[in-house]
Amino acid sequence: MKDSLKIVKIGGGVLDDPEQLHQFVAEFHRLPGQKVLVHGGGKGASTLLQSLGIEPQMVNGRRITDAATLDVVTMFYAGKTNKLLVALLQERGTNALGLSGADGNVLRATRRPVGAVDYGYVGDLTDQSVNTPLLQTLLGAGLTPVFCAITHDGQGQLLNTNADTIASVLARALAPFYEVALHFCFEKDGVLADVNDNSSVIPQITPARFQELKASGAIAAGMLPKLENAFAALEAGVEKVIIENALKINEPVKTVLCRS
Amino acid sequence: MKDSLKIVKIGGGVLDDPEQLHQFVAEFHRLPGQKVLVHGGGKGASTLLQSLGIEPQMVNGRRITDAATLDVVTMFYAGKTNKLLVALLQERGTNALGLSGADGNVLRATRRPVGAVDYGYVGDLTDQSVNTPLLQTLLGAGLTPVFCAITHDGQGQLLNTNADTIASVLARALAPFYEVALHFCFEKDGVLADVNDNSSVIPQITPARFQELKASGAIAAGMLPKLENAFAALEAGVEKVIIENALKINEPVKTVLCRS
Repeated sequence: MKDSLKIVKIGGGVLDDPEQLHQFVAEFHRLPGQKVLVHGGGKGASTLLQSLGIEPQMVNGRRITDAATLDVVTMFYAGKTNKLLVALLQERGTNALGLSGADGNVLRATRRPVGAVDYGYVGDLTDQSVNTPLLQTLLGAGLTPVFCAITHDGQGQLLNTNADTIASVLARALAPFYEVALHFCFEKDGVLADVNDNSSVIPQITPARFQELKASGAIAAGMLPKLENAFAALEAGVEKVIIENALKINEPVKTVLCRS
Repeated sequence: MKDSLKIVKIGGGVLDDPEQLHQFVAEFHRLPGQKVLVHGGGKGASTLLQSLGIEPQMVNGRRITDAATLDVVTMFYAGKTNKLLVALLQERGTNALGLSGADGNVLRATRRPVGAVDYGYVGDLTDQSVNTPLLQTLLGAGLTPVFCAITHDGQGQLLNTNADTIASVLARALAPFYEVALHFCFEKDGVLADVNDNSSVIPQITPARFQELKASGAIAAGMLPKLENAFAALEAGVEKVIIENALKINEPVKTVLCRS
């Protein structure tokens, strides 16, 4: 019987609003059992870049990370956001420990090859990127790892890496050792049947139901890649994927994706 | 028989110069056995503060840390410097793991009381501040902890904390479990008999010799508090304190302070 493990990913909305951040920390602390937190950046990194005279460059909604941008996002994600979350979790009594992928070589990425777009210092991960023995040691010592969206290539180079991808790769790599629930948190209560009605949460989606919803065009375009990604994680051994509101993780309202 | 443990503190000079930083990383990697690195900030934090329109405030050579300054130094120390050191050590093959005092509650400080000067968000440490079981777990797992000069108060507040003090407190708290050598690295080759002659390194200083040197006025004023601090660490059980050049830690030239 494997121990259960919750991997919770939070994004910009919660991180940008101090009140929501405190509320999320209280809810995350209340989640029982072993857990991991993965956080993205939020708007603060862009604001800091602009304060330093570096114009954020985006292509297809993704950040182009040149050397100066990497320096700033590393400071913001690994320094400011990560340490704030760790300190607030420690205040509650959750024994949080902040990690970039370089720390303990916990996430080794490869720099994205230059194609039509040169994304710069951006890292891609595979299921072999994760130092699972280290995570088992940390979890076994009662710690709650808190990951920021920075990895490294093992050759001295830090890399900016998508937080959704980090959460998915961690879940897949840890699935042989834990019964993993992967939680994607955002500002809505779950996957909505009607994108304008926050009460239209679909409680459960099987692969068959997903095909129906896709065919009917009911799922918002932005949600599609997240769901594809989620079902791939289930195929790879993750027990369940949950899509929910960051401030309601201890409430029953949510969408649970399951294998069948 | 206790395992030996080296605690190495580096300061501004090495951190401010990329070439020296790489050279130090190579030397630190070559140091045999279990080890811990503690780093201060260097001039980069002041440059970043000024870029953001925050004028660094110093009183008696110490930084006044208001909330905006704390944000920036946390980003710089815990984000930029710490992650760069960790990534460069990983490149060499040293399994470094970066820590602020908040991570794993490894260093819990108390905010310095407001006296004649309000230093702001500055943390003071005692020998009871250190989570020694966590450090034993990390060292036992083959990791090399890399500490930045940020701690927390356990109540959600991060605190700016002197890196020399962090190194001393770690050494004292770990002395019951390891044979600890505490290395203070700087730009000179050791304690000099003649401050203008870098070849005048005093190889060994006992408490009796220290009293003689103090009485004769031979020791530079800036070195005195460091030495007082070092002998206090020896009294508290640290095996030896070494004062040496950050780029020559594997060479025999250095000053060793010993109990008798």
